[in-house]
Amino acid sequence: MSSNTLGKAFTVTCFGESHGRCVGVVIDGCPSGLRIDESDIQMEVDRRGPRGETLVSGRTEEDKVEILSGIYRGYTTGAPVTALVWNRDIMSRDYEGLADKPRPGHADYPANVKFGGFSDLRGGGRWSGRMTVTLVMAGAVAKKLLNLHKIEVLAYTSKVGNVEASKVSVDEIRVNTYKNPVRTADLKIVEKMVEEILNAKSRGDSVGSIVDFIALNVPVGVGEPFFDPLDGDLAKGLFTIPGVKGVEFGLGFKSSTVYGSENNDEYKIEAGRIVTSTNNSGGILGGMSNGMPITGRVAFKPPPSIARKQKTIDLKRFENVEITVGGRHDPCIAPKAVPVVESVISIVLVDHMLRSGIIKRIIKS
Amino acid sequence: MSSNTLGKAFTVTCFGESHGRCVGVVIDGCPSGLRIDESDIQMEVDRRGPRGETLVSGRTEEDKVEILSGIYRGYTTGAPVTALVWNRDIMSRDYEGLADKPRPGHADYPANVKFGGFSDLRGGGRWSGRMTVTLVMAGAVAKKLLNLHKIEVLAYTSKVGNVEASKVSVDEIRVNTYKNPVRTADLKIVEKMVEEILNAKSRGDSVGSIVDFIALNVPVGVGEPFFDPLDGDLAKGLFTIPGVKGVEFGLGFKSSTVYGSENNDEYKIEAGRIVTSTNNSGGILGGMSNGMPITGRVAFKPPPSIARKQKTIDLKRFENVEITVGGRHDPCIAPKAVPVVESVISIVLVDHMLRSGIIKRIIKS
Amino acid sequence: MSSNTLGKAFTVTCFGESHGRCVGVVIDGCPSGLRIDESDIQMEVDRRGPRGETLVSGRTEEDKVEILSGIYRGYTTGAPVTALVWNRDIMSRDYEGLADKPRPGHADYPANVKFGGFSDLRGGGRWSGRMTVTLVMAGAVAKKLLNLHKIEVLAYTSKVGNVEASKVSVDEIRVNTYKNPVRTADLKIVEKMVEEILNAKSRGDSVGSIVDFIALNVPVGVGEPFFDPLDGDLAKGLFTIPGVKGVEFGLGFKSSTVYGSENNDEYKIEAGRIVTSTNNSGGILGGMSNGMPITGRVAFKPPPSIARKQKTIDLKRFENVEITVGGRHDPCIAPKAVPVVESVISIVLVDHMLRSGIIKRIIKS
Amino acid sequence: MSSNTLGKAFTVTCFGESHGRCVGVVIDGCPSGLRIDESDIQMEVDRRGPRGETLVSGRTEEDKVEILSGIYRGYTTGAPVTALVWNRDIMSRDYEGLADKPRPGHADYPANVKFGGFSDLRGGGRWSGRMTVTLVMAGAVAKKLLNLHKIEVLAYTSKVGNVEASKVSVDEIRVNTYKNPVRTADLKIVEKMVEEILNAKSRGDSVGSIVDFIALNVPVGVGEPFFDPLDGDLAKGLFTIPGVKGVEFGLGFKSSTVYGSENNDEYKIEAGRIVTSTNNSGGILGGMSNGMPITGRVAFKPPPSIARKQKTIDLKRFENVEITVGGRHDPCIAPKAVPVVESVISIVLVDHMLRSGIIKRIIKS
Repeated sequence: MSSNTLGKAFTVTCFGESHGRCVGVVIDGCPSGLRIDESDIQMEVDRRGPRGETLVSGRTEEDKVEILSGIYRGYTTGAPVTALVWNRDIMSRDYEGLADKPRPGHADYPANVKFGGFSDLRGGGRWSGRMTVTLVMAGAVAKKLLNLHKIEVLAYTSKVGNVEASKVSVDEIRVNTYKNPVRTADLKIVEKMVEEILNAKSRGDSVGSIVDFIALNVPVGVGEPFFDPLDGDLAKGLFTIPGVKGVEFGLGFKSSTVYGSENNDEYKIEAGRIVTSTNNSGGILGGMSNGMPITGRVAFKPPPSIARKQKTIDLKRFENVEITVGGRHDPCIAPKAVPVVESVISIVLVDHMLRSGIIKRIIKS
Repeated sequence: MSSNTLGKAFTVTCFGESHGRCVGVVIDGCPSGLRIDESDIQMEVDRRGPRGETLVSGRTEEDKVEILSGIYRGYTTGAPVTALVWNRDIMSRDYEGLADKPRPGHADYPANVKFGGFSDLRGGGRWSGRMTVTLVMAGAVAKKLLNLHKIEVLAYTSKVGNVEASKVSVDEIRVNTYKNPVRTADLKIVEKMVEEILNAKSRGDSVGSIVDFIALNVPVGVGEPFFDPLDGDLAKGLFTIPGVKGVEFGLGFKSSTVYGSENNDEYKIEAGRIVTSTNNSGGILGGMSNGMPITGRVAFKPPPSIARKQKTIDLKRFENVEITVGGRHDPCIAPKAVPVVESVISIVLVDHMLRSGIIKRIIKS
Repeated sequence: MSSNTLGKAFTVTCFGESHGRCVGVVIDGCPSGLRIDESDIQMEVDRRGPRGETLVSGRTEEDKVEILSGIYRGYTTGAPVTALVWNRDIMSRDYEGLADKPRPGHADYPANVKFGGFSDLRGGGRWSGRMTVTLVMAGAVAKKLLNLHKIEVLAYTSKVGNVEASKVSVDEIRVNTYKNPVRTADLKIVEKMVEEILNAKSRGDSVGSIVDFIALNVPVGVGEPFFDPLDGDLAKGLFTIPGVKGVEFGLGFKSSTVYGSENNDEYKIEAGRIVTSTNNSGGILGGMSNGMPITGRVAFKPPPSIARKQKTIDLKRFENVEITVGGRHDPCIAPKAVPVVESVISIVLVDHMLRSGIIKRIIKS
Repeated sequence: MSSNTLGKAFTVTCFGESHGRCVGVVIDGCPSGLRIDESDIQMEVDRRGPRGETLVSGRTEEDKVEILSGIYRGYTTGAPVTALVWNRDIMSRDYEGLADKPRPGHADYPANVKFGGFSDLRGGGRWSGRMTVTLVMAGAVAKKLLNLHKIEVLAYTSKVGNVEASKVSVDEIRVNTYKNPVRTADLKIVEKMVEEILNAKSRGDSVGSIVDFIALNVPVGVGEPFFDPLDGDLAKGLFTIPGVKGVEFGLGFKSSTVYGSENNDEYKIEAGRIVTSTNNSGGILGGMSNGMPITGRVAFKPPPSIARKQKTIDLKRFENVEITVGGRHDPCIAPKAVPVVESVISIVLVDHMLRSGIIKRIIKS
């Protein structure tokens, strides 16, 4: 079956490999009449930052977005929107000889078995963080659609190893996140997070991290239970991001330790709107949005590419061996993942809003 | 779009409502030649336990499984398998008048908005835990298929409120779980968990919980990245279970606090098989199984139905009011959720194993 | 993959077998708020007529429609609508021993190979015309939705063997079709068609037929090219009806013999509306409706069940044998197929109108 | 919903527009290990012939196939295969001013309504025959897969206006079809067909046509009834080709005029294989292949672009007007459609053979 497509109404099909010719995306189901051009998509790709750098910094010229289809005279036509970024600056030599010696923590071994040894594993191939550029390109289109409905999707690095951000306001997320290399919203913690990352790196190691997200102004009733619940589809989308090991909404795992009387969010009328006094549900009840902010967290493992010697096996000789993984690698996933998390959430929201008819097939933008 | 179907190759479409005529399931894509009859499905439904009881106990006669199609002379034919359980013993009076006063923590409010007030919310309607009977019926078929491949899917209640089970062996899960009312695998903790639940109940309250799961002998390469990763599809499936607020695999959220050198699972050859020394990944790398046990945890919120007075709004009069929720309710989700978690995991595994051709379209059973 | 589901937004999943317990259907994606009850569906099922009769006559009590889910207080809830008809009056003895001797023209042989001999072939099993009851039940719901948009879907038997109806008006189709046993709209030809069918029957034979269809008031722009064109999805739906060997729209095969200057339908403004002077396109251009009536024809082969001795093979002994097919059979498909053709077209139209947002998710009916 | 994707297991998503930057295709679900390179795809594209020519001739340099992803060291990797052809030599001036004056027989009017006037209609946009290059590229990959199973898919122009080919042998189709500009298999009729086309053209007109097809060596049991029958999916695929107005299998419409005793294909054992004495069913019974050649016909209308003055309306001024359509156009569809028909059939066959497990996920080629 088709497995490289996310969504049902706003569908995102990605193609390409980390060290192939390009990474690209076909977006099917985008309404017609949306004003958009390459710079809108480029802006989001730039926020993700350059490849292979220590931490996230400014744009590199190489990742230039090209739109191949679906836009005419500055507006979407309703036909598939295709966008891609050509791959340049590739040093595939680093990966030679590793095909038969799977790197611990990477997809190499199951990929080898699943695809009979035919996978292009250079630079992580399909499993590289590089593939998330395609999510960000699609996310850029989704965000434009959400903007028309005043919906805002924000994310930030809330934890790096054991360094944790304090509780922040929405405004702090908006203003601070993309102004610091770790993409956190708590400026007081930036230095410590950078330090944690650089320390790990200097030891030839990597470190885990958490990204918090919040989506504002999502209307009530988005999500399709029983089997396409909003939280379920968001979780599925988020688990497609390489390195994710956990997803929770609202109180999340903490909700397992509290009582119903503490956890239930009571309704009230406030300024003429129905709201809840607390938001332990993270804005989702029975798989549908309830009008409150959609909140949650995504846990990232430390990137598996570390400079240390590791034990593995030689698949051809079927014997135990040791390897050292070369190449340039990010020592922490969260900083680059922040715009990816935003993109996935935006894509899933648009998909569901199209399905429920809240976003129309023809846009006046 | 179709939203009440889970899976792509082994698809599970559920129908019915908590207080409607029945709850049922159509399973499309089940291979032909699988030996199965109503008692196989009945057994799994019985493990889920009766409706509306304090804790899980033995079977009630009412939940009798009927197979309507797809099985001939004791074998699946390859046509859709339909099974249902008729609803009996319904006391819908308790829900009268609540349609306009959404219960905190329930799906009532978004359901009302989404479906224009036409939802059947009696007993929770489509959002009731009752609907999970359909997952268990489909799970029973999936488990039969997995058995042929020696795959075993186990789950147990690992935490109720702040009462936590100790680390248990696979054998303890196998032997203990369905022998105690909280469905935990650590027999030393049963009494405390029961106490925690009954205490909450006696206060007119409910309590949160966690279910751990493990799937053994899953072959390498199950899962379809980039966008149908095994962990993503498992997470989506698990989030369809009412009350789930978080899902994690392997080390899960803890992986965000460790270093790559600690987290990477090194490969080695052991007894002629490729294994990893640790299993922090929970058996999934790059969205594909790696041959190690698939492990993870599911966090359940405390059930929203509590006996206490709660604040809500009257949707018709648009004013703040107070309600007390009647009806019979479970004060903790995990005990009944254990076979549901097993079922969802089994369904998703079968779906992916059919997609990758590991399970064939014609079975010799 | 799921293969027993038709449609993407208004999805129709059928279950059951000709001589199993029931034939039923799950409709997912039906908007909430549609006023409907069992009698609406019963009426359409009755138009299809009884099982196993010579020609179509009145209702038999046995085919009583039961709704199992999705309707509450007389309105659809937005949850899956499940309806079924229990099978009674089954004489399966007639089919004993034929499993290994495939009947010419039937699905027996490929079904046997495809499903490893596990198919329930009694009475044609999944391949029986009996299964079209499920399409008619779903079609009844679809027609109710179309009525709200003033869309009317009509069909009639236009040819039986070499007996052909004259050109008829829309009113003749409306008034005449269900008043005669062959379901034709040209009353002058009824007797000859009946004679043609009875002649074939008296010779132990069967005869082919054609059904013409027309859908009125379909709005402009229904259909999703490039790959879900309205004609393509209609054709696919129509080919699911047992016995269909050809489908054409507008001029159809005749358009292959004319010139562009004859075939092009010129536009003009008439009574304030944009229409075409001719309708050779059958109301579909580029896979989308153009506002004109959607017209076409469906060719049915003669039913394969004939009373004559026929040559076949014994699959077990792998040798040539002769068989005579028992059981009760219709000698011509069109009469019973007329409401089925209407149903399929209605289902596909609703599916596409939901996808394009013309039919809303909440209905005021 | 996603609408620009054909297939479920071998999925073909096309993008691009006639006068946009390119036309391209993403093939998801192609097994790994298939030996293929650009020349394999180029060869099929070349058979389709150049754009805008009178009849089909040799290759034009401009339509050079580029593979963007999914192939590594000459073999498919199991990741999406993306291929495109850049558009060059575009004269869009011819289409200026026509957006508001829909061309009779074209998709302009419904496209305008459906997409709110945002469609890129230059050169027919998404509705141009140009888009079929994407089908041919995907078909080239499908054919390579079918070759491994000895399956051969052939098509040829059987009729142009009233000029009809005689009955031909399979060998004549193989040898003759691509050696003449009308792509017919009956060499005696070539000149007359050319004449018929050129006559129409010289009068500023166009002419209808028919393509016959045959697929050899398809194994028994391909197709997924009830709702994904092989004939239904083939028909849907064929109706996506611009200009198709009818599709039939085996005897097709003629089967409506014969008796069951004439139409039923009796089984017999011949040279150790089960075959039928006749093949009136066109190799499909109950939506599944029966091992006989799959045969059928596709009717094409005359291309709507003709040089004559035609009546239409001015959408902005809402008044009757006349137009003359400029640009270069083919006066008959069949010659270019022959490889497209082959491609669509190949794609659908591969899709279904993957679904039933006959084609494996890893290929040894």
